[in-house]
Amino acid sequence: MASALRVLGIDPGLTRCGVGVVDVRRDRSASLVHVGVVRSAADLPIEQRLAAVAAGIRQVLTDHAPDVVAVERVFAQHNRSTVMGTAQASGIALMLAGEHGLPAATHTPSEVKAAITGYGSADKLQVQTMVARVLRLDALPQPADAADALALALCHAWRRGPAPGAAETLTPAQRAWAQAERATRR
Amino acid sequence: MASALRVLGIDPGLTRCGVGVVDVRRDRSASLVHVGVVRSAADLPIEQRLAAVAAGIRQVLTDHAPDVVAVERVFAQHNRSTVMGTAQASGIALMLAGEHGLPAATHTPSEVKAAITGYGSADKLQVQTMVARVLRLDALPQPADAADALALALCHAWRRGPAPGAAETLTPAQRAWAQAERATRR
Repeated sequence: MASALRVLGIDPGLTRCGVGVVDVRRDRSASLVHVGVVRSAADLPIEQRLAAVAAGIRQVLTDHAPDVVAVERVFAQHNRSTVMGTAQASGIALMLAGEHGLPAATHTPSEVKAAITGYGSADKLQVQTMVARVLRLDALPQPADAADALALALCHAWRRGPAPGAAETLTPAQRAWAQAERATRR
Repeated sequence: MASALRVLGIDPGLTRCGVGVVDVRRDRSASLVHVGVVRSAADLPIEQRLAAVAAGIRQVLTDHAPDVVAVERVFAQHNRSTVMGTAQASGIALMLAGEHGLPAATHTPSEVKAAITGYGSADKLQVQTMVARVLRLDALPQPADAADALALALCHAWRRGPAPGAAETLTPAQRAWAQAERATRR
């Protein structure tokens, strides 16, 4: 697995912060390393909630030693009531990557959907379904925040990796990917 | 100084993050402990910038051991181009308070202005002037981010402390405060 890129994807949130770690090889095939959700109780003061989110992310960084961290990009104009908590959690996720000496990147939700399903307006079930197929999971990753974190990690690896070749030069993993992609679009 | 409340005020920002520590006594008199600006270079990746902000705030927490942390509240609808960096820095400030076991609070800019100058639409120079008088500084605190951090710290202590009494029962410090307040309003 030394040739694989280990990516930690983080779907930032205050109540539920999705974390997913995948190993992605150069042929785009991927395997699940870890998936989970860091939670903080809504009745705690904000400083304790954010500290709980930081502790949970730090634990994943320590346990799974990713090569790179991908964080969902937050937009100020969306979901105004919760956007500040999401933005604050995203800042903590990026900061912890920096403290661990890791590069970090952000991707928008539509970039993630496009990378995973082939189109930027895919719904959550389509993303979950593709993530489960690519990672050969027996069930859809739950909850949605955990699936989003895995999708983000896969998106990051694929967007920076070599593009898949034409059909006749595909590796077995690339063929499996292309088949799964077609199946999801039906 | 055991009876004073030591407050760390933080004006969150990515390029310049103001930090100010004051000791505030029950009679509302206050003294400067520390003031500074944590900077991060604009050409660094975001994760390194946020880690630099965190390191700077952590240093102040360690060096000056405040009792409480006050952070300026960030609004999603303001200054959209920089609001995400500000929100992310505010999340880190609050999280670090939580990690140090300290309570944290947020105050809006107009709450700070009202607490410091007596009216919520005061301009920056009025706030700086009042902060300098209350803390008996020889010069206006510079830059504005540093002054804002001190104002935030004073605001926090005063909003939670006992209200000043009527003029005839004022302590010497309260009289000085009332005089400074009147002078600024001219």
